[in-house]
Amino acid sequence: MEAKKQSILIKNVLLDSERTDILIEGNRFTSLSADPATPADKVIDGTDKAILPPFYNTHTHAAMTLLRGYADDMPLDTWLREYIWPKEESLTPEDIYQGSVLAIREMIKSGCVFFNDMYFEVDQTIRAVADMGVRACIGVTFMDAHSLALRSEKESFISNWQDPTGGRISIASAPHSIYTCSEETLRYAASVARKAGIRIHIHLAETAPEVADCYRERGMSPVKYLDSIGLLGPDVIAAHCVHLDDEDIALLAARGVTVSHCPCSNMKLGSGIFRHGAMADAGVNVTIGTDGCSSNNNLDMREEMKFASLLAKCQGNPECLPAPQALRWATEAGARAFGIDAGVIAEGKLADAILVDLRSERMHPLYHLVSNWVYSAESADIDTVICDGRILMEGRQLLV
Amino acid sequence: MEAKKQSILIKNVLLDSERTDILIEGNRFTSLSADPATPADKVIDGTDKAILPPFYNTHTHAAMTLLRGYADDMPLDTWLREYIWPKEESLTPEDIYQGSVLAIREMIKSGCVFFNDMYFEVDQTIRAVADMGVRACIGVTFMDAHSLALRSEKESFISNWQDPTGGRISIASAPHSIYTCSEETLRYAASVARKAGIRIHIHLAETAPEVADCYRERGMSPVKYLDSIGLLGPDVIAAHCVHLDDEDIALLAARGVTVSHCPCSNMKLGSGIFRHGAMADAGVNVTIGTDGCSSNNNLDMREEMKFASLLAKCQGNPECLPAPQALRWATEAGARAFGIDAGVIAEGKLADAILVDLRSERMHPLYHLVSNWVYSAESADIDTVICDGRILMEGRQLLV
Repeated sequence: MEAKKQSILIKNVLLDSERTDILIEGNRFTSLSADPATPADKVIDGTDKAILPPFYNTHTHAAMTLLRGYADDMPLDTWLREYIWPKEESLTPEDIYQGSVLAIREMIKSGCVFFNDMYFEVDQTIRAVADMGVRACIGVTFMDAHSLALRSEKESFISNWQDPTGGRISIASAPHSIYTCSEETLRYAASVARKAGIRIHIHLAETAPEVADCYRERGMSPVKYLDSIGLLGPDVIAAHCVHLDDEDIALLAARGVTVSHCPCSNMKLGSGIFRHGAMADAGVNVTIGTDGCSSNNNLDMREEMKFASLLAKCQGNPECLPAPQALRWATEAGARAFGIDAGVIAEGKLADAILVDLRSERMHPLYHLVSNWVYSAESADIDTVICDGRILMEGRQLLV
Repeated sequence: MEAKKQSILIKNVLLDSERTDILIEGNRFTSLSADPATPADKVIDGTDKAILPPFYNTHTHAAMTLLRGYADDMPLDTWLREYIWPKEESLTPEDIYQGSVLAIREMIKSGCVFFNDMYFEVDQTIRAVADMGVRACIGVTFMDAHSLALRSEKESFISNWQDPTGGRISIASAPHSIYTCSEETLRYAASVARKAGIRIHIHLAETAPEVADCYRERGMSPVKYLDSIGLLGPDVIAAHCVHLDDEDIALLAARGVTVSHCPCSNMKLGSGIFRHGAMADAGVNVTIGTDGCSSNNNLDMREEMKFASLLAKCQGNPECLPAPQALRWATEAGARAFGIDAGVIAEGKLADAILVDLRSERMHPLYHLVSNWVYSAESADIDTVICDGRILMEGRQLLV
């Protein structure tokens, strides 16, 4: 059951560099300069707070919170084959629900209202999203390892899909990667997506071996390979995209593909270093994802912004990826990729927002709100989280 | 005024992988397997908590919290000459006190009980440390820019120094760097230190231009230059040490120099990438520092551990700098460098500790306490901070 949507008046809150009164009616911002005497179902005193857009996490495997700390500090192949995959075999549907709830609790507490997921037992993650009041795009995974029966079950799930929340949940077709899906599987997953009008979510060019193997087997890069089979388009979210040449990047830009940059995962697994500058220059829609908790090991998009910016700068240029751009990647660009009419605090937009406590030492002094938020704050400085006009957390207490 | 030292019994707390009862008497751990019925002035229920060593931040400029967010995302030279230095000119002694208190509040809340400082108006920072109950080594800065009168005032301060707290505060002689100190100033600062029996704190090999200039002017690396004038020794804490060749690293190891690795600052300013592997292999005592808040922009040593580890791994090897090693650098190695008999939870050691709340989503599940702490937690998961047998924070509330 959804809680009744309220009108919410946030009084005297810092928006950019000005204090104002903000009115939410239903699930939309209806005024950013409201009369402070406007009657409302709920009034929030914003005096010590700044309002900011919340996070849109564009690549994760939510239920993998269950594997947090299970296997760290080891080579990728050992990690996957000897630890992660065998452990995943033992997870029950109820585990997936509980793992998803744990993940969503952590996400809300760190200011994230949306995640783009790829895992299995999707019913369970959908149930958790519905229960917890956030938004999500749930990827239905396709891999060669699946039986034909499982594949047709998935196709039937997709064609019969209806969002039980009336707008917060979408689904995607998620061919896992070029190294776990044959060309036939990739084409199948893409055709299922296009028939149903849903997005495609795929891991792409995450490691150097993936690219080398593709050249050996196909004579071209993973990006060009996917383009050659018609998979790339503005409905595609490609996670990682670490090992790309200039032509790959131009192609991603030309096809309107959204890229999910996962700096912590790429760093922790030693996958390689994202080409942030070339991506931005080419006009690729870059967004930020945390990846799953076994390769990060958290879902903290605030921390992820700092990692993204500092990873970019550490190549030698401190002017790279300034704080406002990192924030846009983590908010506005993510929402845009999923057609969510939010990600900025603006009249008419969906009422997704966080209120950050300016009394925190880490927000002092307040020369530059966004610098403090990206480089200094911690997620515990978030007091309130609002998604779709509903308060999910207030005074650090979860209300869901 | 110091609060009276208590006996503290921490009951049923997780230490490594076992639950135990821990007794603190005065300022030392006296039992790690205490009788839970032991009478104590203060009893803490450790049921939902793990005990860990707190952080020892080996390079910072505490009062620079005042400049947090004042100038970001710009070249190092512009940042220093057009923003930081002019702004610092305007700081009053009271500003330095307030900035130091703000810094120490943030440090305690993020589990840090010691910092190695280098700034000016040291009286004010010492007053803040004395008031706030933490430990510190306060560097008395020497630079060519100082007048002879100021220099002799500093020398006299050092020779007359007495710790007002009876053990929590030490001082160091801090020749700022080879690019702000002539050979004469460096020799002078070193001789002052050795006469007084205090440590030496210096910035070293932070940027490529610093090294190139040294080769041009001296025909040798900064490390070899300092060694040639007798400055290096086990009493030296050298911050940054980014641009070193193998001979430099061997020399630092041979001389017993402690290195303060500041990953966030090096990344954010684009200074270069620390050679963690070569440092560790050579047996250098590597510790971790946050640097000042204008180049980080916080003092969060937990976050700094994650940055150190992921920066090491992102060069291509996920086995580098595993979580337990990052934790040792940030705790035990830092305490050892300053002769503080702490940094591990052990009988007879000084009672410095933090209690981490295991109910936090970010500490779930608990496959590996240290992995969760380094890679997943946030500093807000710290419930209690104890320094020198005194509780500085409990239930996230500062008691100082």
